[in-house]
Amino acid sequence: MMHVDGNRLWDSLMRMAEIGATKGGGNCRLALSNQDKMGRDLFISWASEIGCSIDFDDVGNLIARYPGLNNTLPPIAMGSHLDTQPNGGRFDGVYGVLAGLEVMRTLHDHSFKAERPIEVIAWTNEEGSRFPPAMMGSGVFIGELDLDHTLATTDANGVSVESELERHGYKGKPSLRNHPIAAYIEAHIEQGPILENQDKTIGVVTGVQGIRWYNIEVHGVATHAGPTPMEMRSDALELASHLVLDILAIAKIDGDARATIGEFNISPGSRNVVPDKVSLTVDLRHPNSETLLTMHNQLHELIEQACVKKNGWSAKISDIWYSPPVNFDRNLVDSIRNGANDHNYSYMEIVSGAGHDAVYLSKVSPTSMIFIPCAGGVSHNEAESASKDDVIAGANVLLHAIHKFLTE
Amino acid sequence: MMHVDGNRLWDSLMRMAEIGATKGGGNCRLALSNQDKMGRDLFISWASEIGCSIDFDDVGNLIARYPGLNNTLPPIAMGSHLDTQPNGGRFDGVYGVLAGLEVMRTLHDHSFKAERPIEVIAWTNEEGSRFPPAMMGSGVFIGELDLDHTLATTDANGVSVESELERHGYKGKPSLRNHPIAAYIEAHIEQGPILENQDKTIGVVTGVQGIRWYNIEVHGVATHAGPTPMEMRSDALELASHLVLDILAIAKIDGDARATIGEFNISPGSRNVVPDKVSLTVDLRHPNSETLLTMHNQLHELIEQACVKKNGWSAKISDIWYSPPVNFDRNLVDSIRNGANDHNYSYMEIVSGAGHDAVYLSKVSPTSMIFIPCAGGVSHNEAESASKDDVIAGANVLLHAIHKFLTE
Repeated sequence: MMHVDGNRLWDSLMRMAEIGATKGGGNCRLALSNQDKMGRDLFISWASEIGCSIDFDDVGNLIARYPGLNNTLPPIAMGSHLDTQPNGGRFDGVYGVLAGLEVMRTLHDHSFKAERPIEVIAWTNEEGSRFPPAMMGSGVFIGELDLDHTLATTDANGVSVESELERHGYKGKPSLRNHPIAAYIEAHIEQGPILENQDKTIGVVTGVQGIRWYNIEVHGVATHAGPTPMEMRSDALELASHLVLDILAIAKIDGDARATIGEFNISPGSRNVVPDKVSLTVDLRHPNSETLLTMHNQLHELIEQACVKKNGWSAKISDIWYSPPVNFDRNLVDSIRNGANDHNYSYMEIVSGAGHDAVYLSKVSPTSMIFIPCAGGVSHNEAESASKDDVIAGANVLLHAIHKFLTE
Repeated sequence: MMHVDGNRLWDSLMRMAEIGATKGGGNCRLALSNQDKMGRDLFISWASEIGCSIDFDDVGNLIARYPGLNNTLPPIAMGSHLDTQPNGGRFDGVYGVLAGLEVMRTLHDHSFKAERPIEVIAWTNEEGSRFPPAMMGSGVFIGELDLDHTLATTDANGVSVESELERHGYKGKPSLRNHPIAAYIEAHIEQGPILENQDKTIGVVTGVQGIRWYNIEVHGVATHAGPTPMEMRSDALELASHLVLDILAIAKIDGDARATIGEFNISPGSRNVVPDKVSLTVDLRHPNSETLLTMHNQLHELIEQACVKKNGWSAKISDIWYSPPVNFDRNLVDSIRNGANDHNYSYMEIVSGAGHDAVYLSKVSPTSMIFIPCAGGVSHNEAESASKDDVIAGANVLLHAIHKFLTE
């Protein structure tokens, strides 16, 4: 059984973390910034050392290709992203790219030659912090996001994606966009607390939660804080507070369900005026589309009931987005589970709660993901941290799955 | 029993409402604006017609004095204010001034001469919309607000109170500030829904609620909307929602208690992030200081308990303001009750929930107030409305109380 070179992988992660390093120990490499380019250049230099060719598609997705014996065959691909949040950490994204590189390096060490080529892809702008939306590169790659619209997207200073791609020389070959991929495996930190909490090293990711987004408006009647007796009030904040607790309770349907109210704005927002309006958002998630639909129906019922609770109260709901659950490829998932097992790493099946480039890739190719724990579940934060042992374990499982795919 | 001239009073109110009239049927006469001056000029012309002298103190409080037989005696005073909110109504404040004028006119009609003089005072800037704080003129009059600080106060355009007083010729006699007043009675719309709801014409105002203001901060832990299981979250909005309902329940202590949460801001305020902080304000009111203290203690206990509900949750409270309850003069309150009774107006005792110039006056003089209903309890709004019958009734009760005081 092959093993990755753990020190080499860790050293590469730490070298990469020097680029765009923040005072708090994190990283700032906003998509298509100079720091992002410096990170990509470092990756390119490492990939080139082992004989990879380097190419870009026309949205700047960076493709390092380790050649096979028959390069007309679709490659097996690994990857993630090198861009970070403004106060991002040292592992989110970069781990998937450098674990992929380490797999290629290890195969190169062993002079292993497969029939098909192997790719590591650093997707453009996964974070979406500088240019919305998130997962831009992979979304354009599979055709879910429009290329022209994406190229015209600008950052807060009016700089467009296209002008940055051209400045860095990243506006590559249209033909590489959505080129056939035999399978895609992405290693990533969990960005949640479950693995750490369950004391598991490897998360065998079986799929991605479905997500439904809503906007809700709650209306009451504004009155003075003094004169109006409590029983004559129609306090929008009172109704909204009941709704918050009822909406959070929807997620009690089972342990996989999530409900989040992330935005909550009241009006008029004056200390001595009873609020007449609350605008809030709801984010419901579940890996099973039928259960998510049940939650959706419960939410709509709550809003309907809210309208009749008290004279002067009303509430309305708008459905604004639905991303169906994703089930990853059963064979790849099995292969990852076997890899963890063969290496004697503790593992558990897990469903990703966050979006990843792998979600888009799963629409065009067999796909799966490998999670490793991150301390406290903290991510998108300078304090983001993963242990060297876990980093190595995830790369070994990735190597195992890639090797199995190439030798079957 | 004397009666006011109801048509004259109503016509005067409607004439005054033409000055600074808004499209929506309300009034905009911001304190010390040209519209405010035009309103004061109209009032001055009416008061002068019946032989009143006109004077100002050095914060621009406008004093129309109907002479008595012995003008060294302290006057009995009525009044309120002629300034309005930016989208104010036709009754808030102006009613107390013109009802006072109508009382003087009626006494003048009857050639009634009292020993002591009678004053109607239009207090400067009761609303505080243009220059903070509210009840500025009466606050300076009794020495609760500092004159120099008040004169230096500027509006949003940097124009000072002093420059506006000088421009209009309102910077009058320092000697008139806090001149002795034998009694003060202010007629006002209720600015609440109680009289209308109880189908009463006259509110015999026994006092003003005590008010306590607080700032509360609720802390949790920010996590992604997806990965973190519900039972591992410390959602600041969840804790804050429990607190809102618990805080509103404090006001169930009795029918006079009020609890209002008027400001409520969450952080980071992102759709897919569990909130880690909520800042909210609390306004507690009660006419009895001991009950208000009990409510205060219950609020502090709630916040203490909140800290221990769940790991990762904490809450802290700051007491920021306390205005003790005011009890109006028992003899004046009795006199108002008798007036309503003698006129066969339906009436009830009521406690003012809003601040009025009478609150300050009560600290230096026997004081009381007369409330009349306003439609739907709506005030500080163009839709503010009072019926002609109620307007006349309130003025008759005011006349009754003034006449009684002067003839005893």
